[in-house]
Amino acid sequence: MSDSSAPPTARTHRVPRDREQDHTEELATRRRDFVREETGVELHHMGHYSVPPESLPGNVENFLGVAQVPIGLAGPLLINGEHAQGEFFVPLATTEGTLVASYNRGMRLLTESGGVRTTVLDESMQRSPVFIFEHALAAREFGIWINEHLDEIRQRAEATTSVGKLREIRHYGIGPMQYLRFNYTTGDAAGQNMCGKATLAACEWIQATYPSRPEYILSGNVDTDKKHSQINMIATRGRRVVAEAVVKKQLLLDLMGVDTETLFWARQISNAGAFLVGASNNGAHAANGLTAMFIATGQDVANVAESHAGVVYTQLLPNGDYYWSITLPALIVATYGGGTGLATQREGLEMLGCYGAGKVMKFAEICAAVVLAGETSLSSAIIAGDWVSSHDQFGRNRP
Amino acid sequence: MSDSSAPPTARTHRVPRDREQDHTEELATRRRDFVREETGVELHHMGHYSVPPESLPGNVENFLGVAQVPIGLAGPLLINGEHAQGEFFVPLATTEGTLVASYNRGMRLLTESGGVRTTVLDESMQRSPVFIFEHALAAREFGIWINEHLDEIRQRAEATTSVGKLREIRHYGIGPMQYLRFNYTTGDAAGQNMCGKATLAACEWIQATYPSRPEYILSGNVDTDKKHSQINMIATRGRRVVAEAVVKKQLLLDLMGVDTETLFWARQISNAGAFLVGASNNGAHAANGLTAMFIATGQDVANVAESHAGVVYTQLLPNGDYYWSITLPALIVATYGGGTGLATQREGLEMLGCYGAGKVMKFAEICAAVVLAGETSLSSAIIAGDWVSSHDQFGRNRP
Amino acid sequence: MSDSSAPPTARTHRVPRDREQDHTEELATRRRDFVREETGVELHHMGHYSVPPESLPGNVENFLGVAQVPIGLAGPLLINGEHAQGEFFVPLATTEGTLVASYNRGMRLLTESGGVRTTVLDESMQRSPVFIFEHALAAREFGIWINEHLDEIRQRAEATTSVGKLREIRHYGIGPMQYLRFNYTTGDAAGQNMCGKATLAACEWIQATYPSRPEYILSGNVDTDKKHSQINMIATRGRRVVAEAVVKKQLLLDLMGVDTETLFWARQISNAGAFLVGASNNGAHAANGLTAMFIATGQDVANVAESHAGVVYTQLLPNGDYYWSITLPALIVATYGGGTGLATQREGLEMLGCYGAGKVMKFAEICAAVVLAGETSLSSAIIAGDWVSSHDQFGRNRP
Amino acid sequence: MSDSSAPPTARTHRVPRDREQDHTEELATRRRDFVREETGVELHHMGHYSVPPESLPGNVENFLGVAQVPIGLAGPLLINGEHAQGEFFVPLATTEGTLVASYNRGMRLLTESGGVRTTVLDESMQRSPVFIFEHALAAREFGIWINEHLDEIRQRAEATTSVGKLREIRHYGIGPMQYLRFNYTTGDAAGQNMCGKATLAACEWIQATYPSRPEYILSGNVDTDKKHSQINMIATRGRRVVAEAVVKKQLLLDLMGVDTETLFWARQISNAGAFLVGASNNGAHAANGLTAMFIATGQDVANVAESHAGVVYTQLLPNGDYYWSITLPALIVATYGGGTGLATQREGLEMLGCYGAGKVMKFAEICAAVVLAGETSLSSAIIAGDWVSSHDQFGRNRP
Repeated sequence: MSDSSAPPTARTHRVPRDREQDHTEELATRRRDFVREETGVELHHMGHYSVPPESLPGNVENFLGVAQVPIGLAGPLLINGEHAQGEFFVPLATTEGTLVASYNRGMRLLTESGGVRTTVLDESMQRSPVFIFEHALAAREFGIWINEHLDEIRQRAEATTSVGKLREIRHYGIGPMQYLRFNYTTGDAAGQNMCGKATLAACEWIQATYPSRPEYILSGNVDTDKKHSQINMIATRGRRVVAEAVVKKQLLLDLMGVDTETLFWARQISNAGAFLVGASNNGAHAANGLTAMFIATGQDVANVAESHAGVVYTQLLPNGDYYWSITLPALIVATYGGGTGLATQREGLEMLGCYGAGKVMKFAEICAAVVLAGETSLSSAIIAGDWVSSHDQFGRNRP
Repeated sequence: MSDSSAPPTARTHRVPRDREQDHTEELATRRRDFVREETGVELHHMGHYSVPPESLPGNVENFLGVAQVPIGLAGPLLINGEHAQGEFFVPLATTEGTLVASYNRGMRLLTESGGVRTTVLDESMQRSPVFIFEHALAAREFGIWINEHLDEIRQRAEATTSVGKLREIRHYGIGPMQYLRFNYTTGDAAGQNMCGKATLAACEWIQATYPSRPEYILSGNVDTDKKHSQINMIATRGRRVVAEAVVKKQLLLDLMGVDTETLFWARQISNAGAFLVGASNNGAHAANGLTAMFIATGQDVANVAESHAGVVYTQLLPNGDYYWSITLPALIVATYGGGTGLATQREGLEMLGCYGAGKVMKFAEICAAVVLAGETSLSSAIIAGDWVSSHDQFGRNRP
Repeated sequence: MSDSSAPPTARTHRVPRDREQDHTEELATRRRDFVREETGVELHHMGHYSVPPESLPGNVENFLGVAQVPIGLAGPLLINGEHAQGEFFVPLATTEGTLVASYNRGMRLLTESGGVRTTVLDESMQRSPVFIFEHALAAREFGIWINEHLDEIRQRAEATTSVGKLREIRHYGIGPMQYLRFNYTTGDAAGQNMCGKATLAACEWIQATYPSRPEYILSGNVDTDKKHSQINMIATRGRRVVAEAVVKKQLLLDLMGVDTETLFWARQISNAGAFLVGASNNGAHAANGLTAMFIATGQDVANVAESHAGVVYTQLLPNGDYYWSITLPALIVATYGGGTGLATQREGLEMLGCYGAGKVMKFAEICAAVVLAGETSLSSAIIAGDWVSSHDQFGRNRP
Repeated sequence: MSDSSAPPTARTHRVPRDREQDHTEELATRRRDFVREETGVELHHMGHYSVPPESLPGNVENFLGVAQVPIGLAGPLLINGEHAQGEFFVPLATTEGTLVASYNRGMRLLTESGGVRTTVLDESMQRSPVFIFEHALAAREFGIWINEHLDEIRQRAEATTSVGKLREIRHYGIGPMQYLRFNYTTGDAAGQNMCGKATLAACEWIQATYPSRPEYILSGNVDTDKKHSQINMIATRGRRVVAEAVVKKQLLLDLMGVDTETLFWARQISNAGAFLVGASNNGAHAANGLTAMFIATGQDVANVAESHAGVVYTQLLPNGDYYWSITLPALIVATYGGGTGLATQREGLEMLGCYGAGKVMKFAEICAAVVLAGETSLSSAIIAGDWVSSHDQFGRNRP
């Protein structure tokens, strides 16, 4: 995978690399110089950072600088979770005007309504190899064998990790293939790589042990890594988290200028629309808050593709208050590993009291609470008619 | 929406704000101090930035600092597009080890195979109001009226923007409701806010003009803003872009250690898996490359929720070479407005020759080409068996 | 396709056929005899029919007898549609106990509530050829050419049919392919074959005329014939029909033992469930009523696969009454052609005043109204707790 | 639910019923007379049947006659299944010309290719109640309790049935709700009612036993009864069955005029199309064969809505032969109960050696094999260009 070990090719312009010491200030500088030579662009701002290059192996290759993504501060948000309890101030990294203001407004509403309840319902990270046989019957028999050898498989898988635990293996048969979905708990890590490594070890053992020595592929696209899917909705990926609150009728009217009856009426319409078009979320904009938190706290931001899925469920209570919940079935987060230990990202987690081991459930709860805050704000703005005007106020970002 | 104008509440700990001059170094510092007081965390690294706070109105509220996201350099990637032509060096902002190396490897394969063809098939950005009537017949009649008054509606919508053009309005009836999907071209902007503003003006005119003065909601969730949907797949959101290449059989074997026959065999299996579970993409990991480019170039990163959707289509050619394409039906990008003008983000666009007006098609093509590079690398790694080992090599990021 | 013209094979047991006069009593008898010889089963009841075999060319090959499917009578159902007006008695062909009783109960509720409003929102039948090119750019250019030559294409398509009209051609690009979706109106026929023939003629002309003589396939699976799809939900297939009613609060309580508040509360839960699991319908059991009507009236019953899709949308009105609607986006029905003219099937249509030319809109409205009746009955039964008990009463069908 | 016990209403025209002896020739005649009086239509053919009305309680209410659906005979089809072995002649009840001829052609191809392998991978029928709590945490705790009391729940559920066995209960949490999916085996019955009754008993016990006496609804739409859903694809409903065959290259060319290479090329295009539009099946027309078999054999034909889902998976073998499989994940069939014992329907099952207890696996295998035959025929016809011409030959059914 390393360019530098490759034979000479026709390419004359190669990105500078050092096979031994690549994560250094010197190499970063050389690469910025290289970009200037190749493109004429001076990377002045990218070269302005406090994160030491030496801290970056494992996070990036061919490092040349940083993207500075502005962080706005929102909060306080009162959360009454199992793991997250109290008022939180939330760092939101974004370049989209209005976003911080809107989430902030929702946080105020929820906080003044008594706070957000948060609950992690389930957790599961996957790798889904597929074994291929001569025909379906052989695949089915293999499936039975897998179930009978679950302990041995687990032993091989878990030998590769001090954290990951194999919860179960689910089977999905198509034609002559047995798709297996290994479900793990992964501690405070998001765990995709952990699951990949563990599953590889398991598959190698399976292949070596199962009489017919079946071919397999480590992912048959059933995982479904870095993409939304209905199986994520149904069977959870990462954490399945609920944020719920009872919004006071009068408070909603005062802060948002919207009546709960109107909101509930509009909810029927949003539900129908989302169902009609096959949306991944019947809510408003979970992706916005999640992305901003993910960037600020060193999450793998590409997981927004999966994490933004959700099911909004609401009820108008007899007293006119509004029960509002959102369930995120595929929230993939970490407080350990990946980008969580980098300079600014770690500060983002620390602000929330979420850095390091034993914090991931708390962080997942905060994420869900933030998402709910954003739902209340945007859903109200759409109804109250200040959606566009607030963007005009906060979102004028043309040069 | 402004906290500072609200009546006093029980909250004693309020984020510092200044109603007049909020985007200043002073306020940023006061907010970092506030965080230290509230949480005990010193935001040393977040406070290290070169982006001037005064440049941030319209991009963020309550600014306190930045997230430093490491950027790795990948390339060159040879692109033979309509708008993007030549070799490109691509900034990828990520905290996930292996990502840059993997995309880089794919870029080499594609470049040595003769480059990537890229084509923007279509473009369309939406806002989807819904008008509500007494019964379905009234909704249907309204729909006819809309079609008959399209010119007048267009006039109102386009009066709000110097860039956006209303292409067409599509109708989707459910019960007594007429969901309208206003489809715009939006120049070099992503355009969600532009569409929102234009559609609001149109709706206000419609409501005032249509005899029954119907109620409407500016979004009925059919847009489908910040979430994946099947309607995006079908009817395009943002740009619909294809990247395609013919990968040489021998080159794939040399660089990736994989035979094209094996790859095509595995493609059948991935297709079946993705179809089985209702995935948004039958490819490998479009979200990874897109997210890294989006952060590096000031895109609205939350759009990854929509942009990562894709359809991979391949054929094994008679000579053993491999035709490989990916179609991104909902690629939402900008080279103007939003975060594109910020300090580091602008440098990211400039490196690609994509900053400013008239560049968005080029940028969309580069995005798609990068995605295809990532597809070739990961798909090969899964087959060749070096997926896990490369993560072990490049992805050791535990503190 | 004819067995009898095939060269001799190893098979010794061939279904009797006559190349000239195959739809005769004699051949039917010979085939029943053949079954007896081959399987030992005497087809006593299948051989009991009044439909003349001579009437069956075009409806079935290798005719040997009939399935006798019991028909129950439900109604009256009061409909206030555009085309269907008045009280209807509906033939429901089924072998599932409770079905007729349940729909009958719903019809009573709706009739006593003042009847069902029905509206056909749209109509469109499709054939979706796909043209394949060297690369995406060529496909895109072809798409432009198609739009420019729409009149000529229409002329070729419509020359094949006295009824079908080509409304529009929609384009969906993937990789080097241009999927075209020809949308037709088809009069009183369901129209799949009519569309197939017309589109074939159009494609042959396109292929012969377009300079590069592109390859095409008459269906690229985008039609989506005989299968549910999201594109059907969004873009209509067959008729898009709404049935809606305002159910009186007291009447629901009296007849079904259920309060409208409870029903609305439960609707939120059903919506969330259907959305979670990716269902084709967020209602209760549209397929039941449609299937029973389809069998009784000579529809192509396989179209239930598409026709059963639906979106239920309801609102609790301020006075406690319940607005209830269901939208069927892909109702494929006919009153002419196919099985509609057969002996019993024609009687089924005639009972509804729907046989022959000019009746399909009326029939579509009745179908939707019947579906709504079934929704009210089953949804109420689930809440009231008499779902299982009524099946115990009406559904004891074990030998 | 019985009309006759209801108080007098404004309706003067009531369907004749007899509360004691309703399934009699006399009542059937009275209802046909009633139709004539109400609509002027003489139900001459509907009144022609050999099925005794006295045999119909449990299958239909308000019986007045039958739909005569023509049956064509197709076959022989050679099946090498676990349960279905040998050559079968298949009754197909349809009014759609070409259908029998097309399936017959596919059966010949498969038979001459050595037959179809069939395998039932899994089985599961569901009822999915939902329990509603004050908040998500309470729902989660309830879920744990359910798992801990599985034996007692099973005991209550299974006490209601001599056949059904509760395999497992799967949980799906949304907001404050716990959707439970009870998965049963149901012997030779389709089992929806059996599952409903068993689950009701279980839920009543749960409600009475669980401390907070939670509210529940017997179906939360997660079942998903009588509608297609992605959860059916993933987790099976009814039987999950595979039919697979290796089609000889030369034979396909001889019988269908199509080359396997072309077929495989077209398969890529069909896959992409089906994926693009969110289809329930990436194959050609499973619904056609299933519907025809369902009507002929007394299945609950509305189950076509679910049963028609499928995943086609194929590979071009090195020798040019074509491995072809279709997996039906939600095939809902019975050989006992429902309509299977009626006069003509029983004959249909008997022809296949599938009537009665212990036959459902065999019948499921035959269904899948027939579907595969139809796939080969139509897919080839689309390529070979005789799709439309064969409909012209066999499908001229206009009066």
